[in-house]
Amino acid sequence: MSQQPGRVASVYSEVQTSRLNQSLPLPNVLKKPFTVKEGPNSSAAGNPDEIAKLFPNLFGQPSASLVASETEGLNPDQKLRIGVVLSGGQAPGGHNVISGIFDYLQERAKGSSLYGFKGGPAGIMKGKYVELTPEFIYPYRNQGGFDMICSGRDKIETPEQFKQAEETAVKLDLDGLVVIGGDDSNTNACLLAENFRGKNLKTRVIGCPKTIDGDLKSKEVPISFGFDTACKIYAEMIGNVMIDARSTGKYYHCKLMGRAASHITLECALQTHPNATIIGEEVAAKKQTLKSVTDYITDIICKRADLGYNYGVILIPEGLIDFIPEVQQLIAELNEILAHDVVDEGGVWKNKLQPQSQKLFDLLPQAIQEQLLLERDPHGNVQVAKIETEKMLIQMVETELGKRKQEGRYDKEFKGQSHFFGYEGRCGLPTNFDSTYCYSLGYAAGALIHSGKTGLISSVGNLGAPVEDWTVGGTALTSLMDVERRHGKFKPVIKKAMVELDGAPFKKFASMRGEWAIKNRYISPGPIQFNGPASRDISHTLLLELGSQA
Amino acid sequence: MSQQPGRVASVYSEVQTSRLNQSLPLPNVLKKPFTVKEGPNSSAAGNPDEIAKLFPNLFGQPSASLVASETEGLNPDQKLRIGVVLSGGQAPGGHNVISGIFDYLQERAKGSSLYGFKGGPAGIMKGKYVELTPEFIYPYRNQGGFDMICSGRDKIETPEQFKQAEETAVKLDLDGLVVIGGDDSNTNACLLAENFRGKNLKTRVIGCPKTIDGDLKSKEVPISFGFDTACKIYAEMIGNVMIDARSTGKYYHCKLMGRAASHITLECALQTHPNATIIGEEVAAKKQTLKSVTDYITDIICKRADLGYNYGVILIPEGLIDFIPEVQQLIAELNEILAHDVVDEGGVWKNKLQPQSQKLFDLLPQAIQEQLLLERDPHGNVQVAKIETEKMLIQMVETELGKRKQEGRYDKEFKGQSHFFGYEGRCGLPTNFDSTYCYSLGYAAGALIHSGKTGLISSVGNLGAPVEDWTVGGTALTSLMDVERRHGKFKPVIKKAMVELDGAPFKKFASMRGEWAIKNRYISPGPIQFNGPASRDISHTLLLELGSQA
Repeated sequence: MSQQPGRVASVYSEVQTSRLNQSLPLPNVLKKPFTVKEGPNSSAAGNPDEIAKLFPNLFGQPSASLVASETEGLNPDQKLRIGVVLSGGQAPGGHNVISGIFDYLQERAKGSSLYGFKGGPAGIMKGKYVELTPEFIYPYRNQGGFDMICSGRDKIETPEQFKQAEETAVKLDLDGLVVIGGDDSNTNACLLAENFRGKNLKTRVIGCPKTIDGDLKSKEVPISFGFDTACKIYAEMIGNVMIDARSTGKYYHCKLMGRAASHITLECALQTHPNATIIGEEVAAKKQTLKSVTDYITDIICKRADLGYNYGVILIPEGLIDFIPEVQQLIAELNEILAHDVVDEGGVWKNKLQPQSQKLFDLLPQAIQEQLLLERDPHGNVQVAKIETEKMLIQMVETELGKRKQEGRYDKEFKGQSHFFGYEGRCGLPTNFDSTYCYSLGYAAGALIHSGKTGLISSVGNLGAPVEDWTVGGTALTSLMDVERRHGKFKPVIKKAMVELDGAPFKKFASMRGEWAIKNRYISPGPIQFNGPASRDISHTLLLELGSQA
Repeated sequence: MSQQPGRVASVYSEVQTSRLNQSLPLPNVLKKPFTVKEGPNSSAAGNPDEIAKLFPNLFGQPSASLVASETEGLNPDQKLRIGVVLSGGQAPGGHNVISGIFDYLQERAKGSSLYGFKGGPAGIMKGKYVELTPEFIYPYRNQGGFDMICSGRDKIETPEQFKQAEETAVKLDLDGLVVIGGDDSNTNACLLAENFRGKNLKTRVIGCPKTIDGDLKSKEVPISFGFDTACKIYAEMIGNVMIDARSTGKYYHCKLMGRAASHITLECALQTHPNATIIGEEVAAKKQTLKSVTDYITDIICKRADLGYNYGVILIPEGLIDFIPEVQQLIAELNEILAHDVVDEGGVWKNKLQPQSQKLFDLLPQAIQEQLLLERDPHGNVQVAKIETEKMLIQMVETELGKRKQEGRYDKEFKGQSHFFGYEGRCGLPTNFDSTYCYSLGYAAGALIHSGKTGLISSVGNLGAPVEDWTVGGTALTSLMDVERRHGKFKPVIKKAMVELDGAPFKKFASMRGEWAIKNRYISPGPIQFNGPASRDISHTLLLELGSQA
């Protein structure tokens, strides 16, 4: 990690300054004395017996809820020493989680210390940290990015790495550690909690749900932070290109971040009403092929042409290719062939492919074929992540339209243009929702450590209600876990929350998409992060999920 | 042109609705009775003798200013028949120009008619139009895009095309035509005005300055509309990726729209303070090479590495390649060689290149070399516009850093990531400035036609002052013109306004960029189109230009 001088608020823009001074409301339960109530013993999301073996000290522990109390339940004179780490990709609001922890300590455990580990989990292992002071933290309040202490993608996995983490915890005499991260990082946090507990260290570990992808959630953790901001930024940009498409007679293919799950794409569709939206989970469930996805888009383009509309907007999730079974099959075969055989110019090598894979390979645009054959990662494997799906689809749609033109089934000129919306949303200034939600998550994490909890993920609920009525607690991380078999061993994992095809958000989308396809129902949300009535809205996904639970 | 059903305001987002109802202030001079005052006779931007020959009826005419008057100068009972056309690429605010013309007619020449030609100048030639009514126009007020009547890139150039335009003007009995477009379209508007006048048609032609690129401006036309909105949207996104770069340790290379001039890149630099900014006009003036541009960026990366900063943001104008003389030379040679010779795999063909071009070709990344050799336009020419400059620069910087690493002059890992910000800004909802400015431009265009003027471009000035004090008038289009020799003939052109290296905006940038390069002075403007104090700011470019004139 490079040297990180703290930010200087004096070079802030007016918006940054106004956000800096934006007040952060807390749920009522965090504003007054509270005690921690325990629920029934928990189990696991799957294979509880294996989880029990992997977490002998933590498995089965109840979740915790904070409830209002007449008297202060926790000792306000206890001086806590807490560490905090940002793990994985950026998500708007991370700085507010840290501010929340810090303010909890200032207000409820005066004289406590907060240490920020630098550059992600590597900072824990290497003992690289900074003591966080009010002056250091202040310029990051309600600001985007993870640059206060930066993040990293290292994991604490091996016995040596656990040992290093222990040493840091002992050296800093840590009462607690807050791990802000996604599914992997929270799994890691739980392993660390188990390890510390098993060695009778006093250091407790609390996780916080972070990822713009929105794929870390459960009944108790309604949403991961950052999703709200990222989707609002993307939806504004999509709304803009919709108007552009209509003005100029083009088809815009917009790829959206979200490799493993398509929540962002679904949310943006609900916010903007595009003509076609591909949801990876549906593609996988219906075992769709690249040809059928192409045909779906092409059919809509042709139907619109018949209606006189020669423009449109199509949303595609970043991870689309990973959801198409035949593509996975082709890539597996290619990896095998390329490892052992020579790719001859004549194409004899192609006979080694299964018939279905050969057919798919021939269907691909030439540029993609070359990319598959030429660009390999250090292990010699095809670099699937480098395939520009949005450009590939445009080319395939173009080819299919050309065919239909020859058959007299299409008579327009197709102009395709690709977009990728990703990085610009990951570090935006957090929305009102993410700002407040993150502050509560952090404040709650402080409370959970103060009350001696470990192996929980900070959980703030009832998010459809005003902030005052939000619920606060912690969910047993083991209760979110299942196991996966890797290299002959069971590994604990928090399963990624995928788009559920029988969930309310997808069902709402599915009921509308036919109309969006051929009629023009575009919505241009505009900038709604901070101002206006819409700036108080929660995401459509969350609203629909809460509604279906009620 | 596809069939365009009018927008339905009922499916608008909250922001769209709130903008719809946003009031549009007018300059004081347009709120009360006014007369039109003429200035001294005008000349041309260059070669006045040739311009005089090309515009015998219009050359030399004075510009017009609207001045407050005790009594109404124009006949309010005159029923005008006016046409309006959008020409060229989209720019936020076009709809407000149309609203401005419309409201002028409603308020100052009751019973008048406004016709919108559909799909750009082709709509004039084909006589495709729609009569604009309050119901039709209302949903487009303060909304982005050109979809009310759509635009097109056709030109009215040949004698037959002028004939078609005449026929439409006569058939519709037009008193006037407002052409909303860039430099080319306004040149065309002036030719049309000259033609109509030469044939004693009553149809007057008034232009309006449109282009997000900001390269249509003069002393009297301080800025083209759309620039303000586009730059504010891009600057927000750049501000976001700056925080991302700092959080994640990457170098983001952002390409920005603007092929012919680098105003957008310069404005965004002034708004956000990136580490390196390439201004095409400077590259051309200093006859920089691709190697020297690469070295400039690489030097900054190395200097930052020494300071402990392994991240940064670099801005590049879309048209960079066109500004590099040696690249132009290489492409000219390639076009020649590819037209007559076979490109052999052994590379013998390369001996046909001049030594300097050969050296440059060898410097290019392989993917770009292949692109230059393989992708040709229908005329067999290299497709310069398709070269992804931002990706090319990343690869060249990577190669240079690799070399320096071997020499022990650099020891970090460089992670480059490219972005292109363009389409998402072209059709955003217009900012407060563009909304108001466009409305005044349109209102003024109505007044100019009403007062019998032709061959002027609607001019609203004193833009640094409150709206009430803005000045209003029309500038003789011939006064902005020079000639270019094409196919042995003089052709009139409104010269594109390039970034002036001795202009105040560039000088301000040049005085700051050294500090921005190595210190971290990033500014994240956030969304400032509509709300907050910054939403009332004019662009830095305009502010600095006005300041230097004062």
